[in-house]
Amino acid sequence: MAVYTDVEADDLNKFLADYALGDLLSYKGIAEGVENSNFLVRTTSGHYILTLYEKRVAAGDVPFFLGLMEHLAARGVICPQPVKSRNGETLRSLCGRPAAIVTFLNGLWIRRPDARHCAAVGEALAKMHLAGADFAGKRKNALSVGGWRPLYVQAGDRADSVQPGLRDAIASELDHLEKNWPRDLPEGVIHADLFPDNVFFLGQKLSGLIDFYFACTDALAYDVAICLNAWCFEPDHSYNVTKGRELLAAYMRTRPLSAAELDAIPLLARGSALRFLLTRLVDWLNVPAGALVQPKNPLEYFRKLRFHQAIGNVRDYGALPERAGA
Amino acid sequence: MAVYTDVEADDLNKFLADYALGDLLSYKGIAEGVENSNFLVRTTSGHYILTLYEKRVAAGDVPFFLGLMEHLAARGVICPQPVKSRNGETLRSLCGRPAAIVTFLNGLWIRRPDARHCAAVGEALAKMHLAGADFAGKRKNALSVGGWRPLYVQAGDRADSVQPGLRDAIASELDHLEKNWPRDLPEGVIHADLFPDNVFFLGQKLSGLIDFYFACTDALAYDVAICLNAWCFEPDHSYNVTKGRELLAAYMRTRPLSAAELDAIPLLARGSALRFLLTRLVDWLNVPAGALVQPKNPLEYFRKLRFHQAIGNVRDYGALPERAGA
Repeated sequence: MAVYTDVEADDLNKFLADYALGDLLSYKGIAEGVENSNFLVRTTSGHYILTLYEKRVAAGDVPFFLGLMEHLAARGVICPQPVKSRNGETLRSLCGRPAAIVTFLNGLWIRRPDARHCAAVGEALAKMHLAGADFAGKRKNALSVGGWRPLYVQAGDRADSVQPGLRDAIASELDHLEKNWPRDLPEGVIHADLFPDNVFFLGQKLSGLIDFYFACTDALAYDVAICLNAWCFEPDHSYNVTKGRELLAAYMRTRPLSAAELDAIPLLARGSALRFLLTRLVDWLNVPAGALVQPKNPLEYFRKLRFHQAIGNVRDYGALPERAGA
Repeated sequence: MAVYTDVEADDLNKFLADYALGDLLSYKGIAEGVENSNFLVRTTSGHYILTLYEKRVAAGDVPFFLGLMEHLAARGVICPQPVKSRNGETLRSLCGRPAAIVTFLNGLWIRRPDARHCAAVGEALAKMHLAGADFAGKRKNALSVGGWRPLYVQAGDRADSVQPGLRDAIASELDHLEKNWPRDLPEGVIHADLFPDNVFFLGQKLSGLIDFYFACTDALAYDVAICLNAWCFEPDHSYNVTKGRELLAAYMRTRPLSAAELDAIPLLARGSALRFLLTRLVDWLNVPAGALVQPKNPLEYFRKLRFHQAIGNVRDYGALPERAGA
């Protein structure tokens, strides 16, 4: 959570003059998004989110993200809609950074999701996967198996300062995943970061998905594995099989997983746990002085990884027998 | 800028059930206020700011702040209005902290104020002083001259790590101010923190004042001196006498300063510079690891203090001769 770049009122007024959004009434930096600067902007025509893409987001990727949000919204996935300037642009520039305005979505994110929220997420994820099937954009997942060794090289030397033995544990897991990572699963657009803070609810109803800035082209089942990690563990790090069952069953009612996908889920969950362990570890070891970002504890994902390593079959995640590719 | 306390959706829904504000549609932590946690809350009835008072704000002081905002708003000062719960309370509790909801004010804060903004602030400050004249609440200024030595004791030992010689310079200024601080100037409610980020504009028109959480009972002219420090220096730390003249003249058109007040302004400006130097120094030297707050550079106020030490007469700030108590 951070605002990295402050925006001057004059600059924002000039920027907004190129849109048909009326007069600026207020804007406030919001404590959301660890990669970008986000402002809640109020004009005489409504509410919007202004995002300035900071250095961790490659400017060349932004058209993919904005195009995807437009594509998904046109197919009924409730997500922020990029707003076009008077001459039709969605990606522009502000304060020397790539910048875009998207529509504001009502909704709250759930700090303590229950099984019903997990079911809603499973369904929304499957619908997003189906809606993305005909999206023409492609973006390699820089944080899939090929991207993990560079992170390990960056953080490995100091990993044991976080927990003794962590370096060797990561090294051996990385070897295992590089050798066994599945290559032939159905691919498409994945969100790749569908954590609770990126899913809005109004009451019990899921009201929208946000933050598509890790979205990429990868195995759809990998997105499911990410959600199992993000939604189905309790604060004490225990796995809640009821939540897993609800998430998987709801996903499969909309998009059935093939036997190969189901078989791969334990390995994909390990990979997903390693991915968040590694990125959090790098962040943890590289907090600048006076940082505005509170890094997340990497060890949460080490404990999840340990759990997945002991899993023999996707049924242990809660996949129902008759659906588990048997 | 910080959100210290996160709020769960369930807890906020329960909290809001005691107000007649309709259903919760969204809430976002905003990057404003260094002392409190602030959320922009949207309900079916409108927009509000929810503030959780963190430990640096004494819970016993909150009724003073909320009462002052109600008092000022009733007298035409545009400022956030505390919202009452169904049983008439403005100060309640959320997440174990004192908490209040106030109305949302439209407006932008000006990052690079010009002389017209300074005039608008001078006028608004004088109007606030007049509107506060019959406010019954009293609150000692904990950050006036009596509060500076404890800060010096806390930070003095390490002051030279920020700039060599800083410790001695502060010590000698503190001695001077303790001996010469004026005690008989007209007192009343002062804002005490009317920096640009606490003053909203829509176009060139001042649209409201916010953040009354340093407000207290003190010399009114001290508030003027704080504004000279906060509004009339350029980014290169030079003093802009045109801005000072506009601010002072506009203030005096609404509330003339007495000869004694004008004579005291150079000393009050030194005191105000030392106050912000000391609080920033303490913050600078005590940034916790992983802090969400980016501390402000204390040396900005050391340079302002040096400027004020060389001032002989309030005319040097831009006070017009015929008004300068001559």
